[in-house]
Amino acid sequence: MKTAKLLLYCPDQRGILSDVTRFISDNGGNIVYLDHYVDPTEQILFLRVEWGIEEFRISREEIERRFAESLANAYDMTFQLYFSDIKPRMALFVSKMSHCLYDILARFTAGELPVQIPLIISNHSDMKYAAARFRIPYHVFPINKENKLIQEQRELDLLREHNISFIVLARYMQIISPQMIAEYSNRIINIHHSFLPAFVGAKPYHAAHARGVKIIGATSHYVTDTLDAGPIIEQDVVRISHKDTVEDLVMKGKDLEKIVLSRAIKKHIEGKILTYKNKTVIFT
Amino acid sequence: MKTAKLLLYCPDQRGILSDVTRFISDNGGNIVYLDHYVDPTEQILFLRVEWGIEEFRISREEIERRFAESLANAYDMTFQLYFSDIKPRMALFVSKMSHCLYDILARFTAGELPVQIPLIISNHSDMKYAAARFRIPYHVFPINKENKLIQEQRELDLLREHNISFIVLARYMQIISPQMIAEYSNRIINIHHSFLPAFVGAKPYHAAHARGVKIIGATSHYVTDTLDAGPIIEQDVVRISHKDTVEDLVMKGKDLEKIVLSRAIKKHIEGKILTYKNKTVIFT
Amino acid sequence: MKTAKLLLYCPDQRGILSDVTRFISDNGGNIVYLDHYVDPTEQILFLRVEWGIEEFRISREEIERRFAESLANAYDMTFQLYFSDIKPRMALFVSKMSHCLYDILARFTAGELPVQIPLIISNHSDMKYAAARFRIPYHVFPINKENKLIQEQRELDLLREHNISFIVLARYMQIISPQMIAEYSNRIINIHHSFLPAFVGAKPYHAAHARGVKIIGATSHYVTDTLDAGPIIEQDVVRISHKDTVEDLVMKGKDLEKIVLSRAIKKHIEGKILTYKNKTVIFT
Amino acid sequence: MKTAKLLLYCPDQRGILSDVTRFISDNGGNIVYLDHYVDPTEQILFLRVEWGIEEFRISREEIERRFAESLANAYDMTFQLYFSDIKPRMALFVSKMSHCLYDILARFTAGELPVQIPLIISNHSDMKYAAARFRIPYHVFPINKENKLIQEQRELDLLREHNISFIVLARYMQIISPQMIAEYSNRIINIHHSFLPAFVGAKPYHAAHARGVKIIGATSHYVTDTLDAGPIIEQDVVRISHKDTVEDLVMKGKDLEKIVLSRAIKKHIEGKILTYKNKTVIFT
Repeated sequence: MKTAKLLLYCPDQRGILSDVTRFISDNGGNIVYLDHYVDPTEQILFLRVEWGIEEFRISREEIERRFAESLANAYDMTFQLYFSDIKPRMALFVSKMSHCLYDILARFTAGELPVQIPLIISNHSDMKYAAARFRIPYHVFPINKENKLIQEQRELDLLREHNISFIVLARYMQIISPQMIAEYSNRIINIHHSFLPAFVGAKPYHAAHARGVKIIGATSHYVTDTLDAGPIIEQDVVRISHKDTVEDLVMKGKDLEKIVLSRAIKKHIEGKILTYKNKTVIFT
Repeated sequence: MKTAKLLLYCPDQRGILSDVTRFISDNGGNIVYLDHYVDPTEQILFLRVEWGIEEFRISREEIERRFAESLANAYDMTFQLYFSDIKPRMALFVSKMSHCLYDILARFTAGELPVQIPLIISNHSDMKYAAARFRIPYHVFPINKENKLIQEQRELDLLREHNISFIVLARYMQIISPQMIAEYSNRIINIHHSFLPAFVGAKPYHAAHARGVKIIGATSHYVTDTLDAGPIIEQDVVRISHKDTVEDLVMKGKDLEKIVLSRAIKKHIEGKILTYKNKTVIFT
Repeated sequence: MKTAKLLLYCPDQRGILSDVTRFISDNGGNIVYLDHYVDPTEQILFLRVEWGIEEFRISREEIERRFAESLANAYDMTFQLYFSDIKPRMALFVSKMSHCLYDILARFTAGELPVQIPLIISNHSDMKYAAARFRIPYHVFPINKENKLIQEQRELDLLREHNISFIVLARYMQIISPQMIAEYSNRIINIHHSFLPAFVGAKPYHAAHARGVKIIGATSHYVTDTLDAGPIIEQDVVRISHKDTVEDLVMKGKDLEKIVLSRAIKKHIEGKILTYKNKTVIFT
Repeated sequence: MKTAKLLLYCPDQRGILSDVTRFISDNGGNIVYLDHYVDPTEQILFLRVEWGIEEFRISREEIERRFAESLANAYDMTFQLYFSDIKPRMALFVSKMSHCLYDILARFTAGELPVQIPLIISNHSDMKYAAARFRIPYHVFPINKENKLIQEQRELDLLREHNISFIVLARYMQIISPQMIAEYSNRIINIHHSFLPAFVGAKPYHAAHARGVKIIGATSHYVTDTLDAGPIIEQDVVRISHKDTVEDLVMKGKDLEKIVLSRAIKKHIEGKILTYKNKTVIFT
């Protein structure tokens, strides 16, 4: 079944749910999913609603305009509209480590991720052979202090050319510059190898080992201008012991990183994430 | 804020969400919670909606009738209505073990459970002192094969007299008879000390130890006429190793049992559980 | 079966395990437990060994001296000796919250904790009734900036008088002064309501909510002079969502705190913790 | 550092640990790992000990004989000896699903698994392309009721020819016959897509969905002649909800299967598993 998915947030008011659901059902749409959350402090309503569009009486091209005129403008809504049969276009950024890359490509090949992957970008050529195995074009942009902004500009050109809708940093070991973040606001997903906000920055497994924690974690988040401080999408943890060396933590952490990153990618693809004031609302 | 909570299920049809939300907002109610699920196989819609009633234009006493006339009858809805300021009346059944009992009473004392506990029923006098510590009346009904039905009848009389709305079996080691189950259908919560459906019946920790599992669990469920086969409300697990004896499993299991049972009690009190065809829909 | 438990650490050398196990078996002890860990960076050997003493040919009073003369001095060992039938004497410190207190007392009553609890100390009288329910003497020492050191001195007198071997801070909301820490070095167990090192200090649930994490945790650790930075004994976590308010986090966190604290108490009682350079070795 | 690893079990007696550790240290070996477990019911001692062999005064070829003569025969020990620098030879069996296969091959490529993979065997040709991407020879043996025993005989020939030391069934959807199990006793690792012993046999995700469980699991175990009843090596679980369809369970389960299987493979490669009376002792 083909569906339209509407994500929105706006100041809470009496009648919004009633009006939105009426807009859909009066136009012949059957709601298959509705989830709703009112932030009690901010008094902001978040809504995700999905309905079958095959018998919907408004054409795809018209829905945005009609919804804006009917409701969104009046209620001061910020909204996005997706269609279930249109696959978003994802770019992967990698450096030298293969585990997240293989995990994503294996899922992609098995049909687990309804997405297109037009290209992989890296600052190193190490993973070229892995990309080749899955027949995804691989572009190398070596980066140093001097050329960073120029190289990112070239990357942005490539992303635009390929109509990329979101970026996944699959253990990409470069800090992204504000210009790229601005262009892909809330559309760059990073995986950080710690249970944020613990162990921000480089070498979190070393830091975790030094502190003697009994559990380590991984965190996927949208990239913002403040390092490792963007809105958190997903986290998970695994138990460790005093017997685990830093190398053991790296190994155990890899499994976490793969799973936490892939869950975040999936939520993003399904249009189940709304971001507000550096926090995420994740619909289930 | 005082709220009304409406739980319902019915065959899915276009327009239900719109009609229910309009019924609330047209009568001056502001929706603070709405969650919704359509079972894709059964084509049954499940809905939980909660709204502020202080400015609601229909009186508490009238809501049920008005909702039935306006919508429930037409859509063939099964529904329940609760009010946030009315505490349900819970009876505890215990045998000889104290851990779940103390856990529930400690939570109750600390105000964690918005409930009344008019009485505790047991087939043994062992826990009388614990009940006394928390000043809850404790009634002993010794049970053997001969007197079982008569004693349960006396228990039922007591439950009716105290207007009990639901029963919690806090490690009560007696099988409940069909007559009591019928009177408290989907209102008797049991805690089983295994990860159901593994290890149904007696001595599940012994069975888990014998099988050599690496994880044990606990399961809370509504009691039905088939032993340990009722609708599951909540489950959780804990990791064990070959070093754990049966006694260790019992000890580790106790922590699981307490938490899994208390989560189930809480969901029940909050009116967040709908039961359909031996499965639960648990709203979040 | 009565056992002796020996915990030790020393610089690693060839032959230590052989010599220690020979010391035990040559004197008629049958080893029922041995766990061993060599820190690969520090080259320190940690050992826990437990043996039946009923047929042991060295008397209890002599074991320490004989072991020191035979092996400990030569290998530069730091060691502790416990006997399974001697229950350590634990003091509880509480403030106003009841959940950890009830949890510990309920476990104690049920025989889960092989310990003595001669007294409870508090800076408030709120929990006096709870202590009374379990018939444990309750001492109130109100604390303010001016009297803090004097009151702690009085507490120390009381602890000495009652021969207290270790202290549990069951959500005791006062910072412990260096004098008390020095006297009970690695023998004061605290429960911190966050996944340390994230959210050190006051109001961690507020901080976790503000950061938008998807998982919260609790940490038990030995108290040192640096706030919330002592050796970590145990941690655990629970998943939360954007729907959880700070109050929900407090509620979910309470269950974590109880379990994480009780696991740490148990490990301490069983003599399964060695501390070295601000980290713990936890034997299983 | 090159090490020898000795795994053994025998009836418990006073002096075994002392004698084994003396055998090693007297011959110039430095113990880097020792773990030990006495089953209190069976009175069987399990031991894993690892020591540096570069200065060991007994040659590799002689260790088994010398250990047998010195200790193993006298104590009635069953023992195995491994060397850290000799990689075991693993055969993968697959059917049509790719997730476990890709996961293992990606780990292998990244150097996570100290193993050799001389070949992949399948009853279908579907995964041939995946094997080719990682350059592992892929052999197809189509299986039906008539040819099953003959095909397995041909597989066994191939396994012998390649000196295969253990087999991993990476979602291989055929029941293994007793002849192969006998030849690879406790050396065939299977991944079952349920939390055994719940949902033995085919279609466990369908069964889990029908029962309405709130958590699903995966189990890796050694294959024995009784279906899904062999010694359990590792299990893990993931939380689900009423919203999850069977397809969602399959998807979530895949992540579990990959991780649980890879943990089991790793434990097997490291020689950390002893099997006794249908249960495993897993050293940490």
